[in-house]
Amino acid sequence: MADRVYLFDTTLRDGAQTEGVGFTLHDKQAIAQDLDRLGIDYIEGGWPGANPTDDAFFTRPPALKKARLTAFGMTRRPGRSLANDPTLAAVLGSGARAFCLFGKTWDFQVDVALGCTLEENLSLIADSVKAAAQKGEALFDAEHFFDGYKANPSYALSCLKAAKEAGAKWLVLCDTNGGTLPDAIERITAEIVKELPGAPLGIHTHNDAECGVANSLAAVRAGARMVQGTLNGLGERCGNANLISIIPTLKLKMGFDVGLDDAGLAGITRLSRDFDGRLNRSPNRHAAYVGESAFAHKGGVHAAAVGKNPLCYEHIDPARVGNRRMLVVSGQSGRANVLARLRDLGLETDAENSALSGLVELLKQREFEGYAYDGAEASFELLARRHLGKVPRFFEVESYAVTDERRHNAGGQLATLSEARVKIRVGADMFHTVSEGNGPVNAIDKATRKALEPAYPALSRMHLTDYRVRILHAGDASGAMPRVWIESALRDDPATHWATVGVSTNIIDASFDALGDSYGYFLLREGVKAA
Amino acid sequence: MADRVYLFDTTLRDGAQTEGVGFTLHDKQAIAQDLDRLGIDYIEGGWPGANPTDDAFFTRPPALKKARLTAFGMTRRPGRSLANDPTLAAVLGSGARAFCLFGKTWDFQVDVALGCTLEENLSLIADSVKAAAQKGEALFDAEHFFDGYKANPSYALSCLKAAKEAGAKWLVLCDTNGGTLPDAIERITAEIVKELPGAPLGIHTHNDAECGVANSLAAVRAGARMVQGTLNGLGERCGNANLISIIPTLKLKMGFDVGLDDAGLAGITRLSRDFDGRLNRSPNRHAAYVGESAFAHKGGVHAAAVGKNPLCYEHIDPARVGNRRMLVVSGQSGRANVLARLRDLGLETDAENSALSGLVELLKQREFEGYAYDGAEASFELLARRHLGKVPRFFEVESYAVTDERRHNAGGQLATLSEARVKIRVGADMFHTVSEGNGPVNAIDKATRKALEPAYPALSRMHLTDYRVRILHAGDASGAMPRVWIESALRDDPATHWATVGVSTNIIDASFDALGDSYGYFLLREGVKAA
Repeated sequence: MADRVYLFDTTLRDGAQTEGVGFTLHDKQAIAQDLDRLGIDYIEGGWPGANPTDDAFFTRPPALKKARLTAFGMTRRPGRSLANDPTLAAVLGSGARAFCLFGKTWDFQVDVALGCTLEENLSLIADSVKAAAQKGEALFDAEHFFDGYKANPSYALSCLKAAKEAGAKWLVLCDTNGGTLPDAIERITAEIVKELPGAPLGIHTHNDAECGVANSLAAVRAGARMVQGTLNGLGERCGNANLISIIPTLKLKMGFDVGLDDAGLAGITRLSRDFDGRLNRSPNRHAAYVGESAFAHKGGVHAAAVGKNPLCYEHIDPARVGNRRMLVVSGQSGRANVLARLRDLGLETDAENSALSGLVELLKQREFEGYAYDGAEASFELLARRHLGKVPRFFEVESYAVTDERRHNAGGQLATLSEARVKIRVGADMFHTVSEGNGPVNAIDKATRKALEPAYPALSRMHLTDYRVRILHAGDASGAMPRVWIESALRDDPATHWATVGVSTNIIDASFDALGDSYGYFLLREGVKAA
Repeated sequence: MADRVYLFDTTLRDGAQTEGVGFTLHDKQAIAQDLDRLGIDYIEGGWPGANPTDDAFFTRPPALKKARLTAFGMTRRPGRSLANDPTLAAVLGSGARAFCLFGKTWDFQVDVALGCTLEENLSLIADSVKAAAQKGEALFDAEHFFDGYKANPSYALSCLKAAKEAGAKWLVLCDTNGGTLPDAIERITAEIVKELPGAPLGIHTHNDAECGVANSLAAVRAGARMVQGTLNGLGERCGNANLISIIPTLKLKMGFDVGLDDAGLAGITRLSRDFDGRLNRSPNRHAAYVGESAFAHKGGVHAAAVGKNPLCYEHIDPARVGNRRMLVVSGQSGRANVLARLRDLGLETDAENSALSGLVELLKQREFEGYAYDGAEASFELLARRHLGKVPRFFEVESYAVTDERRHNAGGQLATLSEARVKIRVGADMFHTVSEGNGPVNAIDKATRKALEPAYPALSRMHLTDYRVRILHAGDASGAMPRVWIESALRDDPATHWATVGVSTNIIDASFDALGDSYGYFLLREGVKAA
């Protein structure tokens, strides 16, 4: 039987300390249920009494199947009795099933931050943990434990002992400043295991030296059996230990039972990306295990080898975590990647087909001109299908003119105006349309839609969502080549998105190029027939 | 005397494998010089013969003061003689000072990927390393070393021995798949140290289990004395080991000499952010050591405690790495930062000056509108000096209009044309000029210079060198706010460059804004008097 490691998620409490992150009550409820579905053991929901959202969350807790809803709080204040400490009372009265109370274990901190005697701090810990244990399950977060243990090991240890004797079910060793290195975490945790045999130890680390994950693993190796962390490593400063990386490693590489079955683990990629969606930020493509690029292969040599035997270049089977392999198409990648991508697209082409060689050459030529298809998959698909003669001619741009002006308006104020005139052939008809816009790309988008939407009303269902420009041959920038990258998405389903690329000496022209690909890709994808 | 650990940067080679990253020749040259200035020992510039950019880079190598320019390549192919292997010949003929050749050390890989005997692979390694050692310094990258050692330790070891005996100055243990955990890295490296006493070992790790940094540190603890990594952990899949995190840890926490003095280390935050700027991406706020939030403290308890004694909540002094503390909700912190920057600029302003408060408010307002002055110091300086009433009014743009057209020319071919008309007041005179250009920004630049150069001939000495656009509130991009970032430099001294920023709903307008700041900053810097 594999040893059990318990998972404690603090996304809703320590993660909520992140600059720029503010969970609504609805967010917190939904995230708690996602965590519960994944199979997390403890969900720390907040600090009751600290703010109205946390209060509301504990007043109307989400229905959880497995996870224990946990309230965070601190040991009673020095000089106050338990009955006379409203902060602690709010925590213990929250109705949570478990209580995670933090207390000082570093003598220096007791002195500087609490301003009480070392002896009194031991009573704060003992009293508070005892009160919590009467209300539910008590956990003790030993703040600054590693710094404290280095400074005064016997005192740090006596704090743990006080919590244990008072009934704490878990003693959690916290690297609060996040700067301790894995070897020190492992050594100190092993010493505690020796000093307190049988005591259930937890670990709480941060990422300030980019060792948050390794620090958690080091403590588990030394005997800790609970890991506290957050989704995607959310957390203040450099973040908390990232549970999304820790969970697969514990289960797949270290052989622990973490309370998740295989299906649970296979849901972790989806969970991670949905969480970023909730935070309204793009998922990190390069995230371990779950990033879109985590199993991407770009180099030609790698790509050829991974096809032969995945073991060569993949540390785990991506399906185990619900992710997938990706062969990146670029000039560096060569024939094997292009072929694999064509197969993904359902384009029957064997490696000996001369059309394939032509496409690889075309790709290299276009990349030499400045196109970059990795990151603009929709433009690649169009290029490939066009080359293989499989794209309808939806429209053809005959000419356009865009004017941007800034001048004083009637009221004497400076006003900016963009106007685009577009001549486009759709089937047998020529359309000549004009539109103003909020900037030239918006004006082009609107004028073009005026011409296209009568024949292709489906286009109203998509819109542009992101836009970027880079200069390719910096050196004389205003005369150099801009590369425009555009992301589009369905209006009613933002998760369905695609990216296109355009290159020209003229930024407006490059934008038109990328925009045209975006419309074309959408129409193709929708199965629309050319007018 | 502290032990020396050598730093080997592979941003330009392994980092270039990253999806979505495509360095231009200019990028590579500039990055190499930044790395050299930082104090890196080895800069792997690419794989000569693999693509035109890498060829051009080695043909025209950047001037480096300290770093050894290193070419990457693979051992000769099975069945070929050295003389008959053009791939290896291109590497060894590149003129680099050092050669890092990778070879197989995993018996399974020799079989599957090379398709030769284990014995022949040893000859490939020996021959190739020997040839490299005759041309310069030879390094051997032992691909898949940890997987290979687990599968067949004596064979993996014999590969290292072959390279060593052939004259390799460094034997670099590579965790190519990136999935090995720190304890295995440390154990295996320690065994190699025992087997090959005195052999100089390097470590090359990836971040597939979010342990890339910890893996490098584990190898160093076991005796490795070279670390291979990249800037900001760039690299395919989940990235390479992040040198930006490893360097401060080795120097500040582990006490190694990494060849950087204190001033070098203090430049690392700037370097990291400039590198992201070059990649046209936002720096990771939460990056260890160098992130904007790495030393951020939310208000209340932490902020107060950190003020009393930083040791409480900061693992190192942020100034050591050129970063700074940020008190998130405190208005005082904004003030202190602005004041410090004004002092840097030699602008006498004391903290009680009401102009300073006004500037802090203005800055907040402008950042709210989308300006980002971190990375556009010239625009900040202009804003500050204007606010303090210390900038001459060099010119005033009355109005402009820019037209971009694409239509069939007389020869029946599609041609693109940009034309800018500009009305500018210079002193008492109003100029109305027009110019065509290679794209709208170039047309604006030329028309504006026509108006300004009669009064300010010095402008002919500067030009635009880079240009980037990002959308600020992605969501409905063609109607959202573009932020334009422009870099300019002296024509005859490219090292003298400055960056400006412009924001508007209209990309052309934002470009004009940033361009105007660039001219203004240059004229100010030159001490030109307003007409």
